[in-house]
Amino acid sequence: MPETFGDRLAARIEATSPLCVGLDPSATLLAAWGLDDEPAGLEAMGEAVIAAVASHAAALKPQVAFFERHGAAGLAALERLLAAASAAGLLVVADAKRGDIDSTMAAYGDAWLRDSSPLRADALTVTAYLGLGAMAAVFEQARAGGRGIFCVVASSNPEGRRLQEATTSAGTSVEAALLAELAAGNAAERAQGARLGSLGAVVGATRSAEGLDLASLGGPYLVPGVGAQGAGPEDVGRLFAGVAASSVLVNASRSILAAGPSEPALGEAAAALGEQLATALR
Amino acid sequence: MPETFGDRLAARIEATSPLCVGLDPSATLLAAWGLDDEPAGLEAMGEAVIAAVASHAAALKPQVAFFERHGAAGLAALERLLAAASAAGLLVVADAKRGDIDSTMAAYGDAWLRDSSPLRADALTVTAYLGLGAMAAVFEQARAGGRGIFCVVASSNPEGRRLQEATTSAGTSVEAALLAELAAGNAAERAQGARLGSLGAVVGATRSAEGLDLASLGGPYLVPGVGAQGAGPEDVGRLFAGVAASSVLVNASRSILAAGPSEPALGEAAAALGEQLATALR
Repeated sequence: MPETFGDRLAARIEATSPLCVGLDPSATLLAAWGLDDEPAGLEAMGEAVIAAVASHAAALKPQVAFFERHGAAGLAALERLLAAASAAGLLVVADAKRGDIDSTMAAYGDAWLRDSSPLRADALTVTAYLGLGAMAAVFEQARAGGRGIFCVVASSNPEGRRLQEATTSAGTSVEAALLAELAAGNAAERAQGARLGSLGAVVGATRSAEGLDLASLGGPYLVPGVGAQGAGPEDVGRLFAGVAASSVLVNASRSILAAGPSEPALGEAAAALGEQLATALR
Repeated sequence: MPETFGDRLAARIEATSPLCVGLDPSATLLAAWGLDDEPAGLEAMGEAVIAAVASHAAALKPQVAFFERHGAAGLAALERLLAAASAAGLLVVADAKRGDIDSTMAAYGDAWLRDSSPLRADALTVTAYLGLGAMAAVFEQARAGGRGIFCVVASSNPEGRRLQEATTSAGTSVEAALLAELAAGNAAERAQGARLGSLGAVVGATRSAEGLDLASLGGPYLVPGVGAQGAGPEDVGRLFAGVAASSVLVNASRSILAAGPSEPALGEAAAALGEQLATALR
């Protein structure tokens, strides 16, 4: 068994900080940086962010939608940035929120988690409206390559609550049922000695732990919602009080990228937030 | 108000058939056709399918995952096929099952539903684990351009049932709640005279209508599950008995593509299934 993604991430968090920098090159942000809303502009922003944050953040999370918006040329820019981020030592989480079944989902796994793919990342975000059970192949692919999955369990936005809190026939909420399925999927790797398995959960910093046994996952967490979305480091600390600090990866995007395009300012913003998060999670 | 996607689709179904041909260029299928599992192979398959089925099918539904699997070069092939399918008269449904929130979801709308995008299609499939309410911008973009959305409501695979059948705090199932939200989103266009609005629902042919008021949508249906997945035209006829025939678009992929690479054989397979579906839905 290769080192699991969860353990690779924990080691990186311990060596740097719990910070994941979200690379969200929206038209608004590109304009604020004085860059064109074209693939070259996205690439320039990505290169600056990677150079500035590589020693302060555990991971980079490019939001795939902003690259896809520019079609094949946008994806080509993303391919180059994924490679650059890896070369700089950052773990890369492709925030694509893919979600489909069987051979289709396996094709997404080939796209984002296969060694030979130009879009390879260390982890991929997924959503499971069609059921986690239909994603077995991509989970196996992740495990085999030491790569990971982050499945959205409890999102940071309010509009998802009705669905995520709905009650399944087993009497638990949809989000609790997904968390339990992910935990079950981590069990074999943990039985073989991994601290954390390959399957992670996305839980918004704006959520409460009520009804969610966060300590049970045995895998990493990806936590959006800090900064522009309203939560602070102390909210993250409270939410994950019973969870190992090195399993919590906290995303911030606008609150870091607003410091650009100055690389020193970006680096300072990342270092400061990384330290605050590490303190809050200690 | 431009002609709605629902009305454009209904007119096309009436002029051709309820058939949507799923373009799923998997490695297995490419090998069976004697094509390389490379972007050029996917493009060659797509070109043959478009030429063969354009006068027999209402729409083409490329499965984006199989193109994304080849990175930017795969997306470039898809860009050319989307344009070719439109030029041949087919409506194009990009089966991407994207699902995110706010500005991120709007970026996916820019990618797939904007006139100037190289990936523009007539409709995009989405999933709503994060809530339909967070997709308002992309729905508005679809309406403004006469383009459409198909949101997965009741998927054809069994693994999704637990989530889709979970009970919301309002006492209805997740799938019924989504259907009602989509229907509400179609109301304004219908009040202005459209037969069908821009927001469609994906309902598997393998499902039953129990608990789902299918006649209430006021928008089109995209129906997977026919052929290789086990359902037949008669199942579709039963499921949509109370729904206008021209609002039901039925996808088949493997059962058509297995006839290739011979274009006449592909055309015959599409014509035969299209006729069976039209009869079953009459």
